Amino acid sequence: MPILVMKFGGTSVANIERIRNVASKVKREVEAGNQVAVVVSAMSGVTNQLVDWVREVSPLSNKRQNQEYDAVVATGEQVTSGLLALVLQGMGVPARSWQGWQIPLKTNDAYGKARIEHIESGPIQDAFKAGEVAVVAGFQGIGPDGRIATLGRGGSDTSAVAIAAALQAERCDIYTDVDGVYTCDPRIVTKAKKLNKVTYEEMLEMASQGAKVLQTRSVEMAMNHKVRVQVLSSFVDQTGANLPGTLLVDEDEIMEQTRITGIAYSRDEARITLAEVPNKPGVAAAIFGPLAKADINVDMIVQNVTEDGKATDMTFTVPKADLANATKVIEDSRATLEYKKLHTDANVAKVSIIGVGMRSHAGIAQEMFKVLGEKGINIQVISTSEIKISVLIAEEYTELALRALHTAFGLDAQ
Amino acid sequence: MPILVMKFGGTSVANIERIRNVASKVKREVEAGNQVAVVVSAMSGVTNQLVDWVREVSPLSNKRQNQEYDAVVATGEQVTSGLLALVLQGMGVPARSWQGWQIPLKTNDAYGKARIEHIESGPIQDAFKAGEVAVVAGFQGIGPDGRIATLGRGGSDTSAVAIAAALQAERCDIYTDVDGVYTCDPRIVTKAKKLNKVTYEEMLEMASQGAKVLQTRSVEMAMNHKVRVQVLSSFVDQTGANLPGTLLVDEDEIMEQTRITGIAYSRDEARITLAEVPNKPGVAAAIFGPLAKADINVDMIVQNVTEDGKATDMTFTVPKADLANATKVIEDSRATLEYKKLHTDANVAKVSIIGVGMRSHAGIAQEMFKVLGEKGINIQVISTSEIKISVLIAEEYTELALRALHTAFGLDAQ
Repeated sequence: MPILVMKFGGTSVANIERIRNVASKVKREVEAGNQVAVVVSAMSGVTNQLVDWVREVSPLSNKRQNQEYDAVVATGEQVTSGLLALVLQGMGVPARSWQGWQIPLKTNDAYGKARIEHIESGPIQDAFKAGEVAVVAGFQGIGPDGRIATLGRGGSDTSAVAIAAALQAERCDIYTDVDGVYTCDPRIVTKAKKLNKVTYEEMLEMASQGAKVLQTRSVEMAMNHKVRVQVLSSFVDQTGANLPGTLLVDEDEIMEQTRITGIAYSRDEARITLAEVPNKPGVAAAIFGPLAKADINVDMIVQNVTEDGKATDMTFTVPKADLANATKVIEDSRATLEYKKLHTDANVAKVSIIGVGMRSHAGIAQEMFKVLGEKGINIQVISTSEIKISVLIAEEYTELALRALHTAFGLDAQ
Repeated sequence: MPILVMKFGGTSVANIERIRNVASKVKREVEAGNQVAVVVSAMSGVTNQLVDWVREVSPLSNKRQNQEYDAVVATGEQVTSGLLALVLQGMGVPARSWQGWQIPLKTNDAYGKARIEHIESGPIQDAFKAGEVAVVAGFQGIGPDGRIATLGRGGSDTSAVAIAAALQAERCDIYTDVDGVYTCDPRIVTKAKKLNKVTYEEMLEMASQGAKVLQTRSVEMAMNHKVRVQVLSSFVDQTGANLPGTLLVDEDEIMEQTRITGIAYSRDEARITLAEVPNKPGVAAAIFGPLAKADINVDMIVQNVTEDGKATDMTFTVPKADLANATKVIEDSRATLEYKKLHTDANVAKVSIIGVGMRSHAGIAQEMFKVLGEKGINIQVISTSEIKISVLIAEEYTELALRALHTAFGLDAQ
């Protein structure tokens, strides 16, 4: 029998009525002949309450504190898993809940944002043989010292994909509050279209560039293990087999390539510019070393050397939430860095166009800059990868930029 | 270093502020030179919410359902244990949380009301050696098949006493919302006195007869393992060593025995009378067998044979919550039982006087009946043990009976 992993996020299990709705979808897949593992998040709001309590009592600044954080917040998924198993049992579908430590889903010791190291597939396979649905508490595993470890926010997606890989599942259906992956955020670009298929690479770029439909790590894992992931809605009468959402596939499964596949944006970044830093070897390391040490991720980076070649302007972006911290780190290193001025700007947005079609279509960057220029939008920083071009612009132009690019690249729905 | 177990109930950890208060008490005991294991309940209200969710989705009528119930409700204590460990860490007291499965605290497979079978003391002892406070999630353990098992309502008291026994603790301090065990419920009998000491046997009778300060099973366990249990309040500035609450002790530790030690009452019972049952062998078994099968506990029983010896009236009490169910079971057996009439009465109360002094003082039952008779209170059923006399009376006389008995037996505070 084919193995199917189904994953439901917090809004899909927000209350008992919705958990019943989830159970119906699971039942339908069981009746269609699948062996099903369901991965669940905490009921929406629950994790926030737990995190609030923890933050009220602790700065969470070391491993021991993170271990307790994990013990507390992992309870959210534990509750949902038990409730869903009960509802399934009540519908005549044999089911049991599995906590991370029971599977076991083994992680490294980076408590609070642990990485999955190994999943024992035997126990769940045995449960399948006994005709049982496995209801897995997402987001959690067990660390090397036997403590509960969580995978970080959004970790339930990663749990689901990892379990699908371990079970060699036919497919991993991620049920969310949208019915698939769109060419752009439909709340902003009303002409956005749902994509039937998207490549792993594109989805990865879209997720890292701000599309919130799937967590980056889960896409990475799906790509590495070739897990067929489908994004679909838990709120429409849609199940994996009949009314499909968006399927993550290999590039060769996509017949006709458009120039770009989607447009993502993020308002979560802030820009820092160090003006007139002496242009000598090691300056980048001197700037980014302390930031890395402070656990601040730097995203886009540009460096402009002044005309005389003696000084350089260094511009980069950090998560908006880390701006104050990053500024402090830089100021603390002023003596070493010898910069003249420090500018910061939190009112920026990153807009990215993404598509494997870029590889075979030339001039796409040019076209993007032209479209933005025609709308009077100034580009502050540019960064590119093989299948993505990102630009940093003033935040107030976000919607305008998205709509203009969506139209210019022929993505608008008819 | 002496080992101390401290247990805090749901109202003592109801919010972050109270958890901080608990942590201060723990810190004080650590600074006084104790190795401390703290057993915590769920924040008050949390377990009720979890139980409500579970009851909404399941009748909880078999083992598989009870296993999920346990997975869900055990999260309440898990949350408290993590939060308290964090608060202690924040106060500079090394601490970690322990879930039942981590200790492990092993139980039998009676999920939902499991019994403790074995506690591994090594891991917590190791934590003590490392100078760490062990914050134990009460009420839970791990069943023989690796599932989370809860000990039933109030099970955190039992966890605490069992852990104190396993660790051979100096004392087990149970912090509650009262500052000790009283001669009677002080909300009804304002002249009730706090007892400095009470014997295990008396406490066991008081708990079984309705005093809610300690859970019966925990007292039983304390008695069997000779754990020195102290009941004290978490809301007054009281710690185990200085301002004592009530200590559970062996009978030989009590110097001067009064005739009775305390008076308990319960409004949780209901009376059932089967009138004119044919008086033949096996009639009791025919009545109580089906009730036992339906998991209904019968408490007091009296049987009166009619004058001619041909028929008998059988009166007994069951928990008020089970009255409807018990009535149905009896009616279903009417053909076999051949009783003439069935009376039920939910408006009854059980009043019990308790004291090891009864063993050496004669005429106490007599005196009790006389006191009640003088107040015009009719006794419906009587049951006695070596150190207890219980009577069933109409519920409306409860307070009157308690106060009259309290005065008559010389328990009133000066």
